[in-house]
Amino acid sequence: MRVEIWSDIACPWCYIGKARFEAGLAAFAHRDTVEVVHRSFELDPKAPAPTDIAVLDMLAAKYGVSRAQAEAMEARVAETAAAEGLDYRAGRIHGNTFDLHRLLHAGKAHGVQDALLDAFYRANFAEARPLGDPAVLREIAVGAGLPEQEADRVLADSAAYATEVRADEREAAELGATGVPFFVIDRRYGISGGQPAEVFRQALERAHEETAVQILPAGDAEVCGDDGCAVPGK
Amino acid sequence: MRVEIWSDIACPWCYIGKARFEAGLAAFAHRDTVEVVHRSFELDPKAPAPTDIAVLDMLAAKYGVSRAQAEAMEARVAETAAAEGLDYRAGRIHGNTFDLHRLLHAGKAHGVQDALLDAFYRANFAEARPLGDPAVLREIAVGAGLPEQEADRVLADSAAYATEVRADEREAAELGATGVPFFVIDRRYGISGGQPAEVFRQALERAHEETAVQILPAGDAEVCGDDGCAVPGK
Repeated sequence: MRVEIWSDIACPWCYIGKARFEAGLAAFAHRDTVEVVHRSFELDPKAPAPTDIAVLDMLAAKYGVSRAQAEAMEARVAETAAAEGLDYRAGRIHGNTFDLHRLLHAGKAHGVQDALLDAFYRANFAEARPLGDPAVLREIAVGAGLPEQEADRVLADSAAYATEVRADEREAAELGATGVPFFVIDRRYGISGGQPAEVFRQALERAHEETAVQILPAGDAEVCGDDGCAVPGK
Repeated sequence: MRVEIWSDIACPWCYIGKARFEAGLAAFAHRDTVEVVHRSFELDPKAPAPTDIAVLDMLAAKYGVSRAQAEAMEARVAETAAAEGLDYRAGRIHGNTFDLHRLLHAGKAHGVQDALLDAFYRANFAEARPLGDPAVLREIAVGAGLPEQEADRVLADSAAYATEVRADEREAAELGATGVPFFVIDRRYGISGGQPAEVFRQALERAHEETAVQILPAGDAEVCGDDGCAVPGK
């Protein structure tokens, strides 16, 4: 089985939802057969590079609330995060995540995608690091296991893995995702939002029980099996 | 979309089927959205390490034919391979492929699985190299891009990636595969055998058209979207 998770590093419910999904997965009997792939989704593709817009100011403007009210909203999210054992501090910076998604695709190609996503989440939500600074991105990426040369290449070339990010985003739209996190099991079942662990466990269970591959009819099977291989013209 | 291909390096139809699948994929309009994963399948798990049993002798014994008849069978497969632009020479060695599958899983973790499988096929069918020799396996694996340290680790430790190989084989059985190559699209459609490229193209087309993810009902969606993020207790 394969689970694809569309998410954005800027999305608190993706950060929390990842931990909940992993708890659900850990409780699933056939967890060893599950592969997880992270897919790109930008909540705010037009955001500037993350430099000096505080999320608290962005929230206050977006929801038309005071800074104190924005702080209270964030505090409630922080409590929810804490219940999953996740650090969550106010003070993070709002900004574009395209380069982070490109690096996550490089991470996928090098087998370190999951570790890199965890590192980005931690840097953003627990440490409020300035993710608009290429030197910071480089340090995080290399720390998560991306080869230095590859990190440098991706950061220097804004086209690197850009196609892959766009393809993920197009697929999210085609599959009907309007927000994130969005979880898709074997391209058959979708789950929207950072649901409780038990919801994920049950969905995995259901997908596992209902796995049924339809064998398409085809011509002469040129196949090898227990009794040997088909021989042409025989 | 994702295509999983169960195959064995010892299987001529897997070698030929891979080329045909790739031709079908190249002709599929949405090929950019397709990921390919190679899965382990051993046709003869009890085979000894490949050292000194010629495939021609094995075939003659298995089918109860003369060595000349086995050569004629192989020649017909070679013609079919040549039609796909693949080198195929007699003289290869029969033997166990478990270590090769373990290396392919290491290749997957390092993003070089497809290149490594091509290299193994070439070494076996076009070059008849002795794949029972760890030094040969190391050379091929490193040549395909597996880091030297990882190749050494996997070859030195027979438990490395053994679980992954066994899991693939269990899944093949669960999905109803009795021989290889066995192609599975998005865990929904299965295709058995090294079919013509057009069969693969049509199957990809069909799977693409019929993609429909069922969104599972769930509780309060803790989600972020265009209009911001859900706030707990609000």
